[in-house]
Amino acid sequence: MKTSLDCIPCLFRQALDSARMFSRDPAVHEAILREVLDWCTGMDMSKPAPVMGQRIHRRLRRITGARDPYRKAKAAQNRLALRLLPELRSALASSEDRLGLAIRVAIAGNIIDMGAAGDVSLPGVRKSLMQALGGEVTGDCAAFRPALKKARSILYLADNAGEIVFDRLLIEELGPSRVTLAVRGSAVLNDALRADARAAGLHRLVRIVDNGSDAPGTLLAEAPPAFKSLFMKADLVLAKGQGNYETLSEAPRPVWFLFKAKCPVIAERAGVRLGAQVVARSKVRSADR
Amino acid sequence: MKTSLDCIPCLFRQALDSARMFSRDPAVHEAILREVLDWCTGMDMSKPAPVMGQRIHRRLRRITGARDPYRKAKAAQNRLALRLLPELRSALASSEDRLGLAIRVAIAGNIIDMGAAGDVSLPGVRKSLMQALGGEVTGDCAAFRPALKKARSILYLADNAGEIVFDRLLIEELGPSRVTLAVRGSAVLNDALRADARAAGLHRLVRIVDNGSDAPGTLLAEAPPAFKSLFMKADLVLAKGQGNYETLSEAPRPVWFLFKAKCPVIAERAGVRLGAQVVARSKVRSADR
Repeated sequence: MKTSLDCIPCLFRQALDSARMFSRDPAVHEAILREVLDWCTGMDMSKPAPVMGQRIHRRLRRITGARDPYRKAKAAQNRLALRLLPELRSALASSEDRLGLAIRVAIAGNIIDMGAAGDVSLPGVRKSLMQALGGEVTGDCAAFRPALKKARSILYLADNAGEIVFDRLLIEELGPSRVTLAVRGSAVLNDALRADARAAGLHRLVRIVDNGSDAPGTLLAEAPPAFKSLFMKADLVLAKGQGNYETLSEAPRPVWFLFKAKCPVIAERAGVRLGAQVVARSKVRSADR
Repeated sequence: MKTSLDCIPCLFRQALDSARMFSRDPAVHEAILREVLDWCTGMDMSKPAPVMGQRIHRRLRRITGARDPYRKAKAAQNRLALRLLPELRSALASSEDRLGLAIRVAIAGNIIDMGAAGDVSLPGVRKSLMQALGGEVTGDCAAFRPALKKARSILYLADNAGEIVFDRLLIEELGPSRVTLAVRGSAVLNDALRADARAAGLHRLVRIVDNGSDAPGTLLAEAPPAFKSLFMKADLVLAKGQGNYETLSEAPRPVWFLFKAKCPVIAERAGVRLGAQVVARSKVRSADR
């Protein structure tokens, strides 16, 4: 989906927040903000917002000299999610609808997002999870389950660290043998990398690939041919999070999205209320298929 | 006070909201946003944020061809405030501290602000007023009252339409004969003009001047000599609202400010919590006096 005008103030807000997280020097904060201003002036709004996010975070990493500035935060988020895993496993064990619950947990995990505003503390995440277990899931749930059942191969596109631990529960329900897990190619925000998949123990369950890119989403144009082939050939693609929705909602094949609608632009585009837990399927024009 | 980096995303948000209020054409929205981007790239951050607000709203008026696009909104805000006036008058009549209550009401009226986010519905304004009547006022209240008592001449700088109706109650308490009321020189946002002072009935009570400018604040550099002279010579200057605080907190004479801290940058600068009702006095270096 293209960048909305509403994304512009939000991109500045994110750039400023990130700059402050990694440098105490106000000159660095101003420098990055002025660069983002300059980029936005000539910005191609037909591209999705994560393209600008990618550029901003590349620049921040270059200025601050940190290759993966969110590394510690991601490790903490994984640990936090792992602490919640036992109680989620026992909830699943006693559930009459294990798959439904695992889907909810995977969506709820999407609150661990350092790009959008959110409470990523243990009580915050636990509270959100508990709400999610009882809360409504909006969208095309009825068609999602048979599609999952039918698929022999599933490409699962992870989103964030921490969240990926909750994805593990869904992947276990789906049956790991048919799942390939994709993470980002290199560091951006708290997006999950191979290290986070390993922290979640997923390397023992599924094949892990990366999308070859440092965008906070999945840019097919930047993906290596092997990834693109996997993406096109999988029976079902399941993509987590807003960044994947923004970059893949017009992909040349159907994609299923699981996310929490944390931003009004995405909520409007998906036709859901802000804060909704969403199962959505991309609409593909027949000419693209 | 100078423009903070945090003002940049907020200025974009405001420009976009205003553009949408006055035009349905997405091309107009994008055009104004791109212009603001361009201006901000070369922006002098040592100037207060209302200087950029002034520029944005000038441009919006030029693009949309509306000389005073908030005219109807202002008239509605004045009517709304006038509907609340009788109950406020009776609260004042039964109060043991009429001046204290009038100060609270004048500060509470500052929620009628279309630059900052706020609920300007009748229930919203009434609720805020009722909270204000019981709520705490932060700042230098102890010194404010004797300063008011001592002053033979008071220059009262109004802020917004609607709010100016509540200012009337404070002006009545102060004694209108020693008060001169200043409004903006021409239309910007819902800032009060002469027409709004008249709607509040203030033309029958006090002398009204204007500050000669279309900035959402008071830019002394743009004020006519007569205004500047009045500003420098009044025994006491009382300035309402955040825009006046941003543009006059470093003025070459002491200024008393009454406002609701609706923005985190201003709250931090004033040393108060976000949402606080503030009485503050500018600090003037002796060399400036």
